[in-house]
Amino acid sequence: MIIIMEPGATKGQIQNVIDHVHNTGMKTVVNSGVIQTVIAAIGETSKYSTEQFEILEGVRKVERIQVPFKLVSRDSHHSDTIVTVGKNVKIGGDNPPVIIAGPCSVESEEILLAIAKVAKECGAKMLRGGAFKPRTGPRTFEGLGKLGLEFLATARKETGLAVVTEVMDTRDLDLICEFTDMLQVGARNMQNFSLLNEIGKTNKPVLLKRGLSATIEEWLLAAERILDKGNSQVVMCERGIRTFDNKYTRNTSDIAAIPVIRKLSHLPIIFDPSHATGKWDLVAPLSKAAIVTGVHGLIIEIHPDPEKALSDGPQTLNFENFRKLSKELEKLSQTLAITK
Amino acid sequence: MIIIMEPGATKGQIQNVIDHVHNTGMKTVVNSGVIQTVIAAIGETSKYSTEQFEILEGVRKVERIQVPFKLVSRDSHHSDTIVTVGKNVKIGGDNPPVIIAGPCSVESEEILLAIAKVAKECGAKMLRGGAFKPRTGPRTFEGLGKLGLEFLATARKETGLAVVTEVMDTRDLDLICEFTDMLQVGARNMQNFSLLNEIGKTNKPVLLKRGLSATIEEWLLAAERILDKGNSQVVMCERGIRTFDNKYTRNTSDIAAIPVIRKLSHLPIIFDPSHATGKWDLVAPLSKAAIVTGVHGLIIEIHPDPEKALSDGPQTLNFENFRKLSKELEKLSQTLAITK
Amino acid sequence: MIIIMEPGATKGQIQNVIDHVHNTGMKTVVNSGVIQTVIAAIGETSKYSTEQFEILEGVRKVERIQVPFKLVSRDSHHSDTIVTVGKNVKIGGDNPPVIIAGPCSVESEEILLAIAKVAKECGAKMLRGGAFKPRTGPRTFEGLGKLGLEFLATARKETGLAVVTEVMDTRDLDLICEFTDMLQVGARNMQNFSLLNEIGKTNKPVLLKRGLSATIEEWLLAAERILDKGNSQVVMCERGIRTFDNKYTRNTSDIAAIPVIRKLSHLPIIFDPSHATGKWDLVAPLSKAAIVTGVHGLIIEIHPDPEKALSDGPQTLNFENFRKLSKELEKLSQTLAITK
Amino acid sequence: MIIIMEPGATKGQIQNVIDHVHNTGMKTVVNSGVIQTVIAAIGETSKYSTEQFEILEGVRKVERIQVPFKLVSRDSHHSDTIVTVGKNVKIGGDNPPVIIAGPCSVESEEILLAIAKVAKECGAKMLRGGAFKPRTGPRTFEGLGKLGLEFLATARKETGLAVVTEVMDTRDLDLICEFTDMLQVGARNMQNFSLLNEIGKTNKPVLLKRGLSATIEEWLLAAERILDKGNSQVVMCERGIRTFDNKYTRNTSDIAAIPVIRKLSHLPIIFDPSHATGKWDLVAPLSKAAIVTGVHGLIIEIHPDPEKALSDGPQTLNFENFRKLSKELEKLSQTLAITK
Repeated sequence: MIIIMEPGATKGQIQNVIDHVHNTGMKTVVNSGVIQTVIAAIGETSKYSTEQFEILEGVRKVERIQVPFKLVSRDSHHSDTIVTVGKNVKIGGDNPPVIIAGPCSVESEEILLAIAKVAKECGAKMLRGGAFKPRTGPRTFEGLGKLGLEFLATARKETGLAVVTEVMDTRDLDLICEFTDMLQVGARNMQNFSLLNEIGKTNKPVLLKRGLSATIEEWLLAAERILDKGNSQVVMCERGIRTFDNKYTRNTSDIAAIPVIRKLSHLPIIFDPSHATGKWDLVAPLSKAAIVTGVHGLIIEIHPDPEKALSDGPQTLNFENFRKLSKELEKLSQTLAITK
Repeated sequence: MIIIMEPGATKGQIQNVIDHVHNTGMKTVVNSGVIQTVIAAIGETSKYSTEQFEILEGVRKVERIQVPFKLVSRDSHHSDTIVTVGKNVKIGGDNPPVIIAGPCSVESEEILLAIAKVAKECGAKMLRGGAFKPRTGPRTFEGLGKLGLEFLATARKETGLAVVTEVMDTRDLDLICEFTDMLQVGARNMQNFSLLNEIGKTNKPVLLKRGLSATIEEWLLAAERILDKGNSQVVMCERGIRTFDNKYTRNTSDIAAIPVIRKLSHLPIIFDPSHATGKWDLVAPLSKAAIVTGVHGLIIEIHPDPEKALSDGPQTLNFENFRKLSKELEKLSQTLAITK
Repeated sequence: MIIIMEPGATKGQIQNVIDHVHNTGMKTVVNSGVIQTVIAAIGETSKYSTEQFEILEGVRKVERIQVPFKLVSRDSHHSDTIVTVGKNVKIGGDNPPVIIAGPCSVESEEILLAIAKVAKECGAKMLRGGAFKPRTGPRTFEGLGKLGLEFLATARKETGLAVVTEVMDTRDLDLICEFTDMLQVGARNMQNFSLLNEIGKTNKPVLLKRGLSATIEEWLLAAERILDKGNSQVVMCERGIRTFDNKYTRNTSDIAAIPVIRKLSHLPIIFDPSHATGKWDLVAPLSKAAIVTGVHGLIIEIHPDPEKALSDGPQTLNFENFRKLSKELEKLSQTLAITK
Repeated sequence: MIIIMEPGATKGQIQNVIDHVHNTGMKTVVNSGVIQTVIAAIGETSKYSTEQFEILEGVRKVERIQVPFKLVSRDSHHSDTIVTVGKNVKIGGDNPPVIIAGPCSVESEEILLAIAKVAKECGAKMLRGGAFKPRTGPRTFEGLGKLGLEFLATARKETGLAVVTEVMDTRDLDLICEFTDMLQVGARNMQNFSLLNEIGKTNKPVLLKRGLSATIEEWLLAAERILDKGNSQVVMCERGIRTFDNKYTRNTSDIAAIPVIRKLSHLPIIFDPSHATGKWDLVAPLSKAAIVTGVHGLIIEIHPDPEKALSDGPQTLNFENFRKLSKELEKLSQTLAITK
């Protein structure tokens, strides 16, 4: 941490800052420049916020040199983490991109099974589906709850697909862990710290969606919290961010976040083109964009009849379009593997 | 809800849309224009999302005419809601603005009592303080938990101030309800739907902070959820939003949200200048700005020694500055009352 | 245009709105619904802003049905526009993606020629380079001016590459038109209406960069202005937008804008991975992402020694990396052409 | 400027950075820390961009210590600049806030004179009005041009009000200087560097609006450019910024920018509540908010019949509302002066 003093800072103010740093257990190196003094704080800086020093009198600015995340950083763990979901789905590293497909919400056993079969047939390795699904407005369909989990378990049994579903409440965690292979943390809960803490104490793989307006750093710090509690099986999921324009897309797909996360962290990164775009006809081009930038997987909403889906219809692929996309992605992945 | 068809929409597509509307129980009025057909859906539109109709073939666009929130809307409840906290703190309507003051986190009984006394002496009616305080990075101070609640209760007993504290986990709700007069929902939990549902089932007044990047409409819909579960004692709290510039202020103070909320809703609205600006020297001017736009209260972070505060130091007023601000706000409120 | 009246609007207010619409020459279709009246204004709505009707008493909301742009819309011109630059560079439609390469600023004849040769050798069809280059801060290098244009002309002569350079001032337009094959409108000038008007009166192809925080619609309306003045040779250029996070990328690459523009408009769309990311090591993955989503070209900053470039060094590829990327893009384009 | 090297940076890389700094004429102070080396570059850093050093091998990060603006900074000029417009309008310092009022566009001599008289009667010291007014969409009213300037001159003569109007094209500058007392740079031209350069060479006072998505720093750097060319009579104007929510306000009023600019710079700062909110009924509360935070003036759109205004009707006050607001602002300013 670099603490830059004001040009007019007094000796007393400088000493006060040095004392504060020493009180944390960190060491200091002081550079008494011509214009102003710069104090480097050396040690376990990730434990301290810059604001603790910014507030001291005579301080102009405090800059972190080390990234504030540590366990998730590539600095601390050079090789790619491979997350294993269920018995044998491998996400990360040089494994081919994993396709996760399914409905926004589980609506009925019959529809879910139909979807799972098509997903499997198209090469998907995992099934997604929400059982707990409250949305922005109250008084709309909020999911089937435990029944939805049971349908997911049935679909897993029938197809062999691993299952991922969202957890929104610490009280549901044990129940959901019984029924699912991977826990999803939704965008709105990315900084639900109680939930992250509890998930960190399980040994289930986690799909951590990026918050609607979370910086890359906040998102990695949310993962850091899960790892810090003991669970290192975290997969990052970019799902579009909120910007000033949402007229033609629901969110802005931050495709560059894919190579950025791969550079900063050893954790796998997947992409959700359905939520990122909000439009089914943009799912195919953006899925391809993610693949060529090195994504480890895609999570795609599909439904036999998106017009009748109880939620997220406009961004959901029907079976025909999903079959077409699967083939295109397969070819694209093969080409990239060959030209590598 | 107005459903605008494509210029080339077929009769079959138009009929399909009409059928979908009728299936929801709503009625239709069809306007077969020269260029394109427009279908008005009439009824309980707040139960349905526009996306359910956008996805139908031949539909160009769907526009909501009614606001999507209902219980919190001024249309449904003309006169201002007055929320009573503790025995006699009245927030809303023509009541003078309520000052809520206190530390970011409860750190010790001694410090909390010192703060509470100064708050009381300066005319504050309520004491704030976090007992559960996890922050973006793990491995930092996360609050005293139950002990913090006990200290708050002691401070209430000694000063008569009503107490507000944040709840972050449904499992803590009963405990917190025992110790506090008002429940705070933090910005990061504004769309923690499980938490909102449970809070909606209590009879405690609620302070609902606006999410970092929540639209006015999403924020009102979060309040709508609480009212929908039965609790109508909700106070909205603007606390700054995230924009492209955070170099000189932590967030952007959306002061216009104050009169906007007063126009759209009957619920009271307060302002948090500490989080909105992130800088103690901006707390005074922005507090005044909020007062003159008609805010119902202010929630301000104070500490005897902000340099030593365990969190939020840079945005925290020391006692001297808080005393000065209190006097200025008092005069400003009186002037406004006279000139009204 | 759909004008939605307040539920309580009076007959007089409704008639007033109808009169206003008729005064513009448009026709009305009135739908007196159960809850509220909806008036459709039919005619040349792109001439009128919604605000002219929003302000009338008793109006709740005005919604545009037609897109506000007309000449650039695919509705008015179904087939793709192919823009020809210089003698034979074709941008748009099914033509293979055009690579435009060059330095941020023209620095010397020698360096420019070296760059142009490498660009040509790698398959680029056009050379970019700024002659007028003022930047955010004054007192930095601002370009070579006319001399830079002369160097560009020399490089064109020696390599046969077509040349594009930025115009920032209406007074420079004639001079620049003499020396260049295509005019670039920079992001900061996307709504410099005088400049757009004058460019619209030339017959030079135009590269229209998206403004830093321009919506898709504003960007298309800027193009509309150029077409409206008579110049239909406009190429859109996505170059990243400003969002809340710029720590690891300079801007946010809005890759979805590529298929969105292709859907809404007949104009070609290219991508600038250098400005969009601001980091040379992200140029390659984002270039590929743009290619697979159907982009018509890429404009890439290259320099023999980015460390010594007078501007934009961190986002500039050196020759080795550009050679590598060119080959990868070539293969990717071929694969896509085959699998189509 | 602080240049932070990577932990693993080699001696050669460190020396290379030092050489680069020396080549600029700046000096270095090198701090060879335990973990990594930190190099301070000392001298005229505002001439250099951080990117020139960021790109060097082995560099992790470059941080500016000095603000990048210099002439506009309070560090270089402690006392408030007072800008004199026309003969005797004083903006800045402890002068009472100056009210500037007028229509968005000059529409006719008659209407303009009516407006000017009401403005004068209500205590405004200056008249605003656009003569060159192209807007986002082409094919709408674009202003009266020279005729508009003549009407403004007539209104000035009749009322004694000083006049401000927007300049959008370097070619119009001489003409506009003849007719007006102050030059306005619009939000869309805040980074039109040619225009800023030319305005900097005049001796007319300048009203510099903040760009739609300009950071505080970019805005001050635009002013810096004008001062750097020789014109120090610049008034900053906050007019709302673009954020993710524009449903209930056109822009987000960044009220905190007022005290921030006062702290960072010696230049006066005024506020435009009309564009900032886009809603006439929010003009009054936001004007008051600006006043209590220390604004030096307000620029307000007024029109005898906003329903018939050719542009910006919804954000324009009619005479009755402007009279009411003027009185309220007068009282508020007096109160603040007394309680100071």
